[in-house]
Amino acid sequence: MDFKTEFKPLTIQPQEIEEKSFEMITEELGEHSFTEDQYPVVQRVIHASADFELGRSLVFHPDAIESGIAAIRRGEKVIADVQMVQVGISKERIYKYGGDVNVYISDPDVVEEAKRLNTTRAIISMRKALREAEGGIYAIGNAPTALLELIRLVKEGLAKPSLIIGMPVGFVSAAESKDELLKLDIPYITNIGRKGGSTIVVAALNAISIMADKRA
Amino acid sequence: MDFKTEFKPLTIQPQEIEEKSFEMITEELGEHSFTEDQYPVVQRVIHASADFELGRSLVFHPDAIESGIAAIRRGEKVIADVQMVQVGISKERIYKYGGDVNVYISDPDVVEEAKRLNTTRAIISMRKALREAEGGIYAIGNAPTALLELIRLVKEGLAKPSLIIGMPVGFVSAAESKDELLKLDIPYITNIGRKGGSTIVVAALNAISIMADKRA
Repeated sequence: MDFKTEFKPLTIQPQEIEEKSFEMITEELGEHSFTEDQYPVVQRVIHASADFELGRSLVFHPDAIESGIAAIRRGEKVIADVQMVQVGISKERIYKYGGDVNVYISDPDVVEEAKRLNTTRAIISMRKALREAEGGIYAIGNAPTALLELIRLVKEGLAKPSLIIGMPVGFVSAAESKDELLKLDIPYITNIGRKGGSTIVVAALNAISIMADKRA
Repeated sequence: MDFKTEFKPLTIQPQEIEEKSFEMITEELGEHSFTEDQYPVVQRVIHASADFELGRSLVFHPDAIESGIAAIRRGEKVIADVQMVQVGISKERIYKYGGDVNVYISDPDVVEEAKRLNTTRAIISMRKALREAEGGIYAIGNAPTALLELIRLVKEGLAKPSLIIGMPVGFVSAAESKDELLKLDIPYITNIGRKGGSTIVVAALNAISIMADKRA
């Protein structure tokens, strides 16, 4: 290929861009009441959304960070509600400890079962996850029905997640599903309101896996 | 699996949830100056973000929608900057007209070339796209460097995209890359400011493929 203008190598490296971004976030966010362990999650969520309102809306169960870190270091599975979450998660730091990142929503048995029961594939995928994962970190960024089903399974004593990152986005059921999550006394990370989404959940999980990897 | 509570089939179907959400968005958005053809993109972006500010920040080149629709119906390729965008795009309506959705950022030759030139894989993936796609729709939700490189290639007359959907998110270079895109007289969809991201770009493209599929 023939370029008229000279190709310039990078004068600023990706790592520097990230560091600079994080500095800007800390400066612009100003005062907040997140703990030192929660803050990296907030920072990375703002980094992924450029939305301080969303960052400030995060709510952490007191055990969320520690339980998430421990689960990653034990090699527990990460279960994503949709493929966008599955591909977005940095795998290296999950694989390193023996874990994996799974998504069941497009599995043929899930599709078939959802049709048979006249329900969503998201719901059935949460039931399948129960059979596939012990404990586990559930990363739900898209489907309120998945989060509501998981909450139901927790209440029934059938699911015992090490961490639920539940931040589906949307106008119908999303905020309500998060309100239900807030009532549970198990480790969760969520936010108040309609905002959220796959990139947000990915950012939160990646922040936790970075912390897990830094532990001695 | 034995459930204590009875499993309830859906009383509201996914299709109804989407319709209800779209009604809420139209009602809450109120007055705006988008055209009839642009509005479905705005609506779907707000649906994916629950962020009216982001929706209102969208900017369309006057030929964007028509050129995007025509490209899909001609079976042109969609090029995504990252895998999250690639997996998020609804493929049926792209495949139906002979198109495909590609992402080159993790290809071994791209990784190697980026190392050799001390630059980002995102930049090199845009150069590879030139060799792989005629015209094409570029969907860039993550990497400002990809968008800036694509703009450079357009200016040099090497790239002639049918549509650029350029909405990378971030604190360093993202808003600036969009300002550069706004200066081009080729079909684009972008937004003002730092916000954006993979889910936003996916929403915009899916809105266009739905419109393409509705054309007689």
